[in-house]
Amino acid sequence: MALPHYVKMVEVGPRDGLQNEPALVPTTVKVALIDRLSATGLPVIEAASFVSPKWVPQMADNAQVLAGIARRPGVRYPVLTPNLQGFEAALAAGADEVAVFAAASESFSRRNINCSIAESLARFAPVLEAAAAAGVRVRGYVSCVLGCPYEGRIDPQAVAQVAAELTRMGCYEVSLGDTIGVGTPEAARAMIRVVAAHVPVERLAAHFHDTYGMAVANLYAVLQEGVAVIDSSVAGLGGCPYAKGASGNVASEDVLYLLNGLGIDTGVDLDALVAAGAYISEHLGRVNGSKVARARLAACAAPG
Amino acid sequence: MALPHYVKMVEVGPRDGLQNEPALVPTTVKVALIDRLSATGLPVIEAASFVSPKWVPQMADNAQVLAGIARRPGVRYPVLTPNLQGFEAALAAGADEVAVFAAASESFSRRNINCSIAESLARFAPVLEAAAAAGVRVRGYVSCVLGCPYEGRIDPQAVAQVAAELTRMGCYEVSLGDTIGVGTPEAARAMIRVVAAHVPVERLAAHFHDTYGMAVANLYAVLQEGVAVIDSSVAGLGGCPYAKGASGNVASEDVLYLLNGLGIDTGVDLDALVAAGAYISEHLGRVNGSKVARARLAACAAPG
Repeated sequence: MALPHYVKMVEVGPRDGLQNEPALVPTTVKVALIDRLSATGLPVIEAASFVSPKWVPQMADNAQVLAGIARRPGVRYPVLTPNLQGFEAALAAGADEVAVFAAASESFSRRNINCSIAESLARFAPVLEAAAAAGVRVRGYVSCVLGCPYEGRIDPQAVAQVAAELTRMGCYEVSLGDTIGVGTPEAARAMIRVVAAHVPVERLAAHFHDTYGMAVANLYAVLQEGVAVIDSSVAGLGGCPYAKGASGNVASEDVLYLLNGLGIDTGVDLDALVAAGAYISEHLGRVNGSKVARARLAACAAPG
Repeated sequence: MALPHYVKMVEVGPRDGLQNEPALVPTTVKVALIDRLSATGLPVIEAASFVSPKWVPQMADNAQVLAGIARRPGVRYPVLTPNLQGFEAALAAGADEVAVFAAASESFSRRNINCSIAESLARFAPVLEAAAAAGVRVRGYVSCVLGCPYEGRIDPQAVAQVAAELTRMGCYEVSLGDTIGVGTPEAARAMIRVVAAHVPVERLAAHFHDTYGMAVANLYAVLQEGVAVIDSSVAGLGGCPYAKGASGNVASEDVLYLLNGLGIDTGVDLDALVAAGAYISEHLGRVNGSKVARARLAACAAPG
């Protein structure tokens, strides 16, 4: 299969990236980050999570973030909503798109959200109904699609079942997460082939983590299977909660460099994206998690 | 084309990785590193460079390194030799395989080794003649195969010409280096296809740098073109001399994780390789440059 001509880049840094930060990031910084990201040409920026602040204190200012950003025409700002309560809060805060999340691994589902896969899907049903009634689009996430920290290998058929059910329930797109980053390219391709037999490949997104350095290769692999939506996190924000010090989300800059090199259009400006990643990395006092950003910033800093 | 069943991993850490280290690494540490690497099952370990210690003081103990290592049957320990003088010193030190290096970029050749590509090849002619007479195998390197810091894009035909000439002169294998790590997968595949029209793909090695985070993806790409020899550096030793703070050689652990995931045999043990990388990273006081190593070491260190 030929590579896609256009890939939709879904930026998850402000939510997925920041949510595990131990120190509270000021709302003004989150707003500035999102506005810098929207100025790069990114079409989708996941802006916040409407989960209980008891569980994720970093996202307690979700409504203020949505109120503070300068909404750019054509850019969507989805937020994560685990249940109807979260959905209603998101709607009240002006969210025009939400996301729900399930796992492809029973053990991960029970340990992460304290219920079975079937129970988690049942919990989303009222969210999807309410969203349909409100004219709000819903994106679905499936975690552990290439491996689980508790179960190891995950059967692609299990991924396909959850993805198909989310689609049937009304999700317009399903993002397939290699949550612990253990996947390799041929496994990723095989998984996509199985899932695409149940959900059109145009409705699948790749959400790959770089914990084992495989994310870019896995993305190149699934691009060859027709996947044309990629989730990523500017500056690689968000480490791996299952291995302290290890990488999590693949860096948006590295994904864009790959896509640019493959001649795939995204509408995103790499220099602006590198600048946005440098801004938040500096604020967090972190080494920039994007190799592309490090190489470009080092080249800028070099004499001559 | 199907992926290869076996890939020969060529470890370049002790030479290519250490040569730019500013602080002299003790000979005993180099020897211990090489012996740990040979115990992993690696079939080829580039052990040292016989260049002038005036230019590369880190390699001044090359003969002591070769004398100190415990040569493991079946493992080869090539050394880099820029000219006849270096070759004779290597031979006297007991080297059984050497390597010569040329560039695919005229500008890079002139700035890096102060002569044209043609002049550099002419300089290697007596090395290859002397090596043939001594029964010593010679490997050829070509740098800048996917881009040059001075010229930008490099024509794959220029790479093919140098690779073909090195083969004609007697090199049994030609290692194609993306010296500044700017390549992306389709460009890497296209380059291999052009070079393989002049040199059998079985005699080509991929020597990719991870400066822009593309190395693993580029390796997956060229494996699909039949390349079955990969150069890498344990713990990602060796930064990019053209961008301070940026990555250089792709980490051997990450390459092995990729190959294991693809079901490709290497004969190399990942745990032992991670341990060897941890040893040298600790000695250098460096963050381990392998994401696989960081993830595995973090998992080991994690409670529960």
